[in-house]
Amino acid sequence: MTYCVATMIDAGIVFASDSRTNAGVDNISTFRKMKTFERKGDRVLVVVNSGNLAITQATLNYLEQEIRHSTEANLMSVCSMYEVAELIGSALREVRHRDGPYLAENNVDCSANFIVGGQITGEPQRLFLIYAEGNFIEATPETPYFQIGEVKYGKPIIDRIIRADTSMNDAIKSVLVSFDSTMRSNLSVGLPIDMACYERDTLQLNHVHRFDDQNDYMQRLHKSWGDGVRQAFAQLPNFDY
Amino acid sequence: MTYCVATMIDAGIVFASDSRTNAGVDNISTFRKMKTFERKGDRVLVVVNSGNLAITQATLNYLEQEIRHSTEANLMSVCSMYEVAELIGSALREVRHRDGPYLAENNVDCSANFIVGGQITGEPQRLFLIYAEGNFIEATPETPYFQIGEVKYGKPIIDRIIRADTSMNDAIKSVLVSFDSTMRSNLSVGLPIDMACYERDTLQLNHVHRFDDQNDYMQRLHKSWGDGVRQAFAQLPNFDY
Repeated sequence: MTYCVATMIDAGIVFASDSRTNAGVDNISTFRKMKTFERKGDRVLVVVNSGNLAITQATLNYLEQEIRHSTEANLMSVCSMYEVAELIGSALREVRHRDGPYLAENNVDCSANFIVGGQITGEPQRLFLIYAEGNFIEATPETPYFQIGEVKYGKPIIDRIIRADTSMNDAIKSVLVSFDSTMRSNLSVGLPIDMACYERDTLQLNHVHRFDDQNDYMQRLHKSWGDGVRQAFAQLPNFDY
Repeated sequence: MTYCVATMIDAGIVFASDSRTNAGVDNISTFRKMKTFERKGDRVLVVVNSGNLAITQATLNYLEQEIRHSTEANLMSVCSMYEVAELIGSALREVRHRDGPYLAENNVDCSANFIVGGQITGEPQRLFLIYAEGNFIEATPETPYFQIGEVKYGKPIIDRIIRADTSMNDAIKSVLVSFDSTMRSNLSVGLPIDMACYERDTLQLNHVHRFDDQNDYMQRLHKSWGDGVRQAFAQLPNFDY
């Protein structure tokens, strides 16, 4: 499985992805599921993905080749995040159209999802979720985040914390707690976690981090959250049954 | 959807079920999903269920008719909880065998799950999960709880709290927090909640409660938990990004 989340706040966008892939529980590997595209002062794009790894890798390679071949419309040339989402959706459709029938012969699922966010000069920051069918939706102030993969365990803390005026530090913490809860309950989501924090209107990506199992901050966060939840539980009123 | 949970601790077993059923979001109803069977001093059985409502109701009616017709082996006559689980599994198979093909004609899912727990004189208290296929598993000290229906949102708090030596009051609170989290994230799980608390070796059911949207305790629990989680979040160490 996979877990990816991206939360958009006034201060910027926080992206995070796990790196565990599995073809059965006896075949577990580590693959980065985050890709960044940057031209300082012009655009920052961050893409995270879930689903069939061959399909997501093929889709991203297709998009990178378009950039290298300077195709008229590519991720580094288009003028809006809407077009970026269109390009990813089209590339995904192309790859699924090409590989899908071969996978279907062996009942292999070829679905994949992408979240893409960032900012292109002249536009505000924007965040999109691209479905397996290649169509997409954009985040709005009412629901300023997207999740893909194993979404349920980590959703409650995001729901509680993320608002437009949440600080960057609180957004980072809610995303990492969300991962902590998900990894605790689903073994197929695992460290290391890749995180990218884009600060609005900077048009450059200054904060990219990787949290592995030796990471001191992640260990302190895990312990502090566990202690805090136990304390919250201990303070609950008793039921007179 | 549905959410049911049963947790077995040294002190007894706590069962709880929501009561929302839906045939599409435009057809929501309230049905009790908990059934109790009791003969004081001899046995207490509590059954909660999820899945196709016609199938679960038919299964329970079949079992009740067996009791009324004094069939040799019925829920009130057998000598062990193992046989109780067998009877429920067999009844479920019977009903699915009878109704399943008609539902399949219209692509209606006829699956259903049951949790049954309690105690029969001469045996310790026991807890079983009955799968849609009619086979079943028993809870053990390592995993002394079962959930059916929408299980993910409410699992973390049960995992954190329930141990063999957890008190009855803490077990009740963890179950109700588990429902609170689930109802917050999944609209198809809803109040009222039915709860039954069986105290080990009493062979009678003294504590059956219903929590509706006017319930003062449930409102206090909801507020206290929300405040506690926010406090736990506020105490997390900052990340220096």
